[in-house]
Amino acid sequence: MKPAIPRLARYLPILDWGRSYGRDTFTSDMVAAVIVTIMLIPQSLAYALLAGLPAEMGLYASILPLVAYAIFGTSRALAVGPVAVVSLMTAAAIGKLGLASPAEYAAAAIVLAFLSGLVLLALGVFRLGFLANFLSHPVIAGFITASGILIATSQLKHILGISASGQNLVEIVGSLLENLGQINLPTAVVGAASVAFLFWVRKGLKPLLRAAGMGPRLADLLTKAGPVAAVAVTTLVTWAFGLHERGVAIVGTIPQGLPPLTLPRFDWELWSSLFGSAVLISIIGFVESVSVAQTLAAKRRQRIDPDQELIGLGASNIAASVSGGYPVTGGFARSVVNFDAGAETPAAGAFTAVGIALAALFLTPLLFFLPKATLAATIIVAVLSLVDFRILRHTWNYKRADFAAVSATIALTLIFGVETGVSAGVLLSILLYLYRSSRPHVAEVGLVPGTEHFRNIKRHQVRTVPSLVTLRIDENLYFANARFLEDYILNRVVEDRAVRDVVLMCSAVNEIDTSALESLEAINHRLREMGIRLHLSEVKGPVMDRLQRTDFLEHLTGQVFLSQYAAWRALNGEDAGEPGREAGPRAVPA
Amino acid sequence: MKPAIPRLARYLPILDWGRSYGRDTFTSDMVAAVIVTIMLIPQSLAYALLAGLPAEMGLYASILPLVAYAIFGTSRALAVGPVAVVSLMTAAAIGKLGLASPAEYAAAAIVLAFLSGLVLLALGVFRLGFLANFLSHPVIAGFITASGILIATSQLKHILGISASGQNLVEIVGSLLENLGQINLPTAVVGAASVAFLFWVRKGLKPLLRAAGMGPRLADLLTKAGPVAAVAVTTLVTWAFGLHERGVAIVGTIPQGLPPLTLPRFDWELWSSLFGSAVLISIIGFVESVSVAQTLAAKRRQRIDPDQELIGLGASNIAASVSGGYPVTGGFARSVVNFDAGAETPAAGAFTAVGIALAALFLTPLLFFLPKATLAATIIVAVLSLVDFRILRHTWNYKRADFAAVSATIALTLIFGVETGVSAGVLLSILLYLYRSSRPHVAEVGLVPGTEHFRNIKRHQVRTVPSLVTLRIDENLYFANARFLEDYILNRVVEDRAVRDVVLMCSAVNEIDTSALESLEAINHRLREMGIRLHLSEVKGPVMDRLQRTDFLEHLTGQVFLSQYAAWRALNGEDAGEPGREAGPRAVPA
Repeated sequence: MKPAIPRLARYLPILDWGRSYGRDTFTSDMVAAVIVTIMLIPQSLAYALLAGLPAEMGLYASILPLVAYAIFGTSRALAVGPVAVVSLMTAAAIGKLGLASPAEYAAAAIVLAFLSGLVLLALGVFRLGFLANFLSHPVIAGFITASGILIATSQLKHILGISASGQNLVEIVGSLLENLGQINLPTAVVGAASVAFLFWVRKGLKPLLRAAGMGPRLADLLTKAGPVAAVAVTTLVTWAFGLHERGVAIVGTIPQGLPPLTLPRFDWELWSSLFGSAVLISIIGFVESVSVAQTLAAKRRQRIDPDQELIGLGASNIAASVSGGYPVTGGFARSVVNFDAGAETPAAGAFTAVGIALAALFLTPLLFFLPKATLAATIIVAVLSLVDFRILRHTWNYKRADFAAVSATIALTLIFGVETGVSAGVLLSILLYLYRSSRPHVAEVGLVPGTEHFRNIKRHQVRTVPSLVTLRIDENLYFANARFLEDYILNRVVEDRAVRDVVLMCSAVNEIDTSALESLEAINHRLREMGIRLHLSEVKGPVMDRLQRTDFLEHLTGQVFLSQYAAWRALNGEDAGEPGREAGPRAVPA
Repeated sequence: MKPAIPRLARYLPILDWGRSYGRDTFTSDMVAAVIVTIMLIPQSLAYALLAGLPAEMGLYASILPLVAYAIFGTSRALAVGPVAVVSLMTAAAIGKLGLASPAEYAAAAIVLAFLSGLVLLALGVFRLGFLANFLSHPVIAGFITASGILIATSQLKHILGISASGQNLVEIVGSLLENLGQINLPTAVVGAASVAFLFWVRKGLKPLLRAAGMGPRLADLLTKAGPVAAVAVTTLVTWAFGLHERGVAIVGTIPQGLPPLTLPRFDWELWSSLFGSAVLISIIGFVESVSVAQTLAAKRRQRIDPDQELIGLGASNIAASVSGGYPVTGGFARSVVNFDAGAETPAAGAFTAVGIALAALFLTPLLFFLPKATLAATIIVAVLSLVDFRILRHTWNYKRADFAAVSATIALTLIFGVETGVSAGVLLSILLYLYRSSRPHVAEVGLVPGTEHFRNIKRHQVRTVPSLVTLRIDENLYFANARFLEDYILNRVVEDRAVRDVVLMCSAVNEIDTSALESLEAINHRLREMGIRLHLSEVKGPVMDRLQRTDFLEHLTGQVFLSQYAAWRALNGEDAGEPGREAGPRAVPA
């Protein structure tokens, strides 16, 4: 085998699975593709509507991007395309530009997809996927829940047939209430019926089918066809009763044909004003996508490579931007359907693309009478399953700092919109973590009688001696807590004249950075002026290696003990022999 | 004793030391005050020059602020007033406003002192002093070194008698080179002679005095009077030879009298454009001041309270702003002099204030012929002692990430100026820390034969079994590294079909946040799908307490072992008895 192939295959996973592609795999992928195509048609149209874009852009975003992901992605079952949260973020990003014409709006969406693709590719090439980690789970959970509420609320206007706008809950609700008088009754009937039908399909249809003797997988897949049924029925009804002449907004003419070739408009001002949004969309999209991909891969003991996933999603977004689409990512519901339907390779995604392309070529005239209210209903039902406030109770019980992050994210997203909400959530998570680690847990410990173990004097009955203070530091020592340690130790000993020795027990210290080293030097120096010796115990290997590269150990007034018990025996006079001293050329007798 | 006193004394430390104030203390404080006054007069004038302000503002900043600190500060020996780095930052903050008239410039300095005072007071009242910890030692060291270079370079124009300006090294040097043709020879002679004299005083005078039989303390104090001698001699020479008529720039008329009562101009635009600078000045000033105060306090086994220090410095800056001064903080050199001269209480600072007030009342006419070149020389000699590149070598050897932070801080401060430099340094420190902790050290461990200890299989000869993977995680588990752990564990086991059990050894894990908990749940779930059990060992008390509040332990496929050795024995079949199981109602047999 040529050695070039595996290396190239890292960037082109298709070379890996493509070589062993056979008839059986083809059949499995084909079945999955047909099912996902049926599910994706109404979704694509609906999410384009949510993003404030013409319906066909949803279809275009579901063709080439899927092919690009099939070539560059590592997940075998991920189904990419337009998704709810990214569509909402697209609407927010472009909405704030205040563009007048729909053409400019569409052009901005194409630029956004292009920038988002560049950001994802850059993160992948430079292996910066770890940046996504700064979106903590609680922040994501809060953001998704708040986005779900925003999306559902924003779609109410289509259900009621009134006009409304806004980037946050206050604006949207205010705008809805203002225009409530203009409700269009036929629209409201179609909308409410669709919502009710879709909820029933989701909750009530499956038990019914099972009771009728249908297998669980087939029953599950049939319920996913609910939106298609709603689309078909309401389109027919609208056509038959001429509801569009009675005020029901319809999708109207969708250009028939394959996606046009588009190029992002090279406008520096537009690029710089969309760049921040593109970063947010990329990271949110990546985090959502990679967790779905990881969950599905583990089920079949497969591997995904997060950095290559960035490249796969980046290629998808570039593909979206050159074919009249808008930002895409891996969708949760449709990937699960793809997986359950038996997709074995990314080729299933490419086949889905063919399905959507056929729809764009031949089905669009049939969608002329499709009411926008039906699409809004499919969105509302889909996103309400994202809304989940249990994370609030869970974090409240488990960790209050996380509760603070999740509630701030929800509140700020609802009040100020998606971009402020998620940025504030990330910032708050980082600040809270730094705050916590800047005030580390320090326990004064004593010997558990009859053992060699040391425990917190506040929690346990332990032996101590007045001349010896032993402090166990339960945190890495670094700049954010270096000064805290100085204050803590000096405050402990400054007025306790009995103290002769201070031992820092370092069993949980994985790192001592330059700031902390200087603080230890300062502590050593100040304790010496008080006639107190400073010792260390249970220093980890890598930490000790570093310390030995400095002159800290030369100046240390006390010793470095291998174990806390050795320190206790040596400093307590219980042991006349040699203490368990860390050996080394720099060892200086106390 | 009334209980109100101690509580009030926390905010008014003067109530504490004031009660036992006696004649001996008075004498000590008085001697120190006289010496510091002599040192402070040229410094005040020089730093005002550096800040781009009229000389008298330096004197004013050395009167009321000292009284305010004496009332509210907790350090017994800290000497506050104008200092080099804060003066440079003041110049940078006001310089970027592009103000035309000197009066507006002075008004902006007063506003800056007021804002800085408010920021410090707010940080003190809300006990937010920990925020200063985010300035790591390497960033401070780099910043101080780069500032020293900037300051020294910026003063060259006064030494050479040419005009030059700029906020960063490139601008300053460019401007100097451009105007190099206009050198004023008499100025250059005075300037160069002053610099040479002051360097000689610093390096050569003390050994000479010691050799002549003078005691070390007196010799030390006399060398501190060097700047006063330079001021006196060059003023006399300028007056005698009429050098001011030959192009030597002199200080000129300094208004005679006590500080005027001033109020900060309430101009919203000015306030908002200076606010960011005020925050930076406050934090830099606080960090500098508190480390001097802490060093001196430890020498006498005294305590300082960092949060009260914020209040003391805040009060000083408010005092500066209402009495025609500009931002102040505790100075390093002068606090050491104050301490060495025997200052016992903050009253020494108040006495110094009286000394400076007397100077403002009676000495200013004598300073009419003082050449600016002499002041520039005192600044240059003072700040060059701040320049210290050893931090580069030290961090290079000790920790490369810290080296990156310090070199970036130096480079950015020199190239883009003080505000960009220090902000970038702080940001970089935080990012590097988060990056490091997002890729924690995970060691696969095995049993050291004949012991109960477990060590890294890469570093030691240890026993392992193919069905058991034990991973020791040397870091807290939180959102930034949660996903890393998922990837790491799954990559380790996904292609190793022999693995039946994975044990996470948590002896260095002080925290598991909600994100990490969800990752552990995901790991548990995914391992279960591969037929692998997940176990934990050596979980700390507080971490276990939290886990028991969730349903994680119910779903855990494996067990929680008290010690890693218990896990080894139980999972390895070496022990038929009961493993060292963590007891509890949620315990589920494996």
